[in-house]
Amino acid sequence: MMTPRKVKIVEVAPRDGLQNEKEFVPTETKIALVDRLAHAGIENVESTSFVSPKWVPQMSDAAAVLAGIERRPGTIYSVLTPNMRGFEGALEARADEIVIFGAASEAFSQKNINCSIAESIARFEPVAKATKDAGLRLRGSISCALGCPYQGKVAIDAVVDVVERMKALGCDEIDIADTIGVGTPARTREVMAAASKAFPRERLSGHFHDTYGQAIGNIYAALLEGIEIYHASVAGLGGCPYAKGATGNVATEDVVYMLNGLGIETGVDLDQLVEIGDWISRAIGKPSASRAGRALIAKKNAGVAACV
Amino acid sequence: MMTPRKVKIVEVAPRDGLQNEKEFVPTETKIALVDRLAHAGIENVESTSFVSPKWVPQMSDAAAVLAGIERRPGTIYSVLTPNMRGFEGALEARADEIVIFGAASEAFSQKNINCSIAESIARFEPVAKATKDAGLRLRGSISCALGCPYQGKVAIDAVVDVVERMKALGCDEIDIADTIGVGTPARTREVMAAASKAFPRERLSGHFHDTYGQAIGNIYAALLEGIEIYHASVAGLGGCPYAKGATGNVATEDVVYMLNGLGIETGVDLDQLVEIGDWISRAIGKPSASRAGRALIAKKNAGVAACV
Repeated sequence: MMTPRKVKIVEVAPRDGLQNEKEFVPTETKIALVDRLAHAGIENVESTSFVSPKWVPQMSDAAAVLAGIERRPGTIYSVLTPNMRGFEGALEARADEIVIFGAASEAFSQKNINCSIAESIARFEPVAKATKDAGLRLRGSISCALGCPYQGKVAIDAVVDVVERMKALGCDEIDIADTIGVGTPARTREVMAAASKAFPRERLSGHFHDTYGQAIGNIYAALLEGIEIYHASVAGLGGCPYAKGATGNVATEDVVYMLNGLGIETGVDLDQLVEIGDWISRAIGKPSASRAGRALIAKKNAGVAACV
Repeated sequence: MMTPRKVKIVEVAPRDGLQNEKEFVPTETKIALVDRLAHAGIENVESTSFVSPKWVPQMSDAAAVLAGIERRPGTIYSVLTPNMRGFEGALEARADEIVIFGAASEAFSQKNINCSIAESIARFEPVAKATKDAGLRLRGSISCALGCPYQGKVAIDAVVDVVERMKALGCDEIDIADTIGVGTPARTREVMAAASKAFPRERLSGHFHDTYGQAIGNIYAALLEGIEIYHASVAGLGGCPYAKGATGNVATEDVVYMLNGLGIETGVDLDQLVEIGDWISRAIGKPSASRAGRALIAKKNAGVAACV
């Protein structure tokens, strides 16, 4: 058993967590969410995306969010950009890291953006070049790395192929994402081990959804493969667009609880995180999907003799 | 990575899952739950407990439940018994396995039953002897093995001490229970490794609560230690008496989903299990706490293109 000594958490609640919320979340709430997460010790806050407001109306205030946040020294504020227009917005708004994306599933790529995986990655060439020229960090996110809602199984070679394409574009960090939460620990280890042969292990991250309750098991499995970066969403914000009522992103509270138990440093204050999860859940009127969050809030409310 | 080829699931929903339900669950519902679980391939169904109806009114129909079930050949129907009176009821009702219990936490033992751990185990001597004399299986359940709501940490030596006492009573199987769900994977492995030195590994089981979202991670960790028996509760039935609103037992659907993904045999039909979880959740008027259960029901309702 060899797990890393230290782990970086990428908080995706402000972007991945909120983007599918039907009701518009006020810009000041989004700013407060980003600032509170950075204050709790999160190293990288995925803050918004510069996409067409027609596609994702919830993210139409991207520039205002980046203009309003505190800019904590050392914190990386990352944003998603689908194209050069998005990149220009992100550059002007002073994002630290540009996130580009592609699927490891051919069926998903065709259904979602009507082109092949290879074409979809190639389209990011200008964004990648402009990002590097501007001296910003570039991150590549690979969706459907453990399964696809359309084609089912996804070959490990297909994941590695996208890793190599993103590496060639100059990505500083690459995310292996289980977009629909179908992965289990042994497969997670195989995928991470294969990806680690194509790209430096310490710059690979795991993005696990908890749709089938497997995320914490998969993160432990990835830790055993030496993966040091994990994505999570406070209060488990963000559902699964492929299964109404199902769970989406793994909750950051549950991840930090495990890492604390394993003695792995994160720099994140769990108490603050639990408060943020409680606050944002109330703000958007949904119960928290974090089990650790709910238990720790219940404990606090009950006083002394509750769950330790 | 060496995980077992086959795992036995002990379903605790009819007993641990229902015992704290305030509203009395009709006896025919309990019987249907036990029968449907056995039919889905569960090898051991913890069916009820023979305790004072003053303590646990929900279990006051223990004899009627055992009289009404189908008795599937090969299935073990186990029951909890706190004393000789309970044992006699269980014997008359033709239980297959008698479950005795004790805490690994001195504070918990004192608070709950007002005696030391050693005394509490010694009190089971007559039950243990009578169980063996009657030719029934004897199982010992060790609560608070990974933490205690009163004293916090629990030493591994304290767990091993209770394992040895239960072994001396003639237990055929011993449960390592994380009663309040505070355990994390590395500690789980340490406790399982230590217990395996005192008692045959293949007859140790893991009983994990999901209060802090750690159960699936802990089960994967225990699998890596070669543990072959796991407790779970369909639909995650049964909350945490120490934190209102918090999660209790790990959901059987989530456990079987992981084991299927790992290629580990259980003999359990996941489709049937998901249907049972949906049915019993409706019957008691609570949403299912199983993530895999909710996702698979959502997928079924949505038709083709939902989460695979």
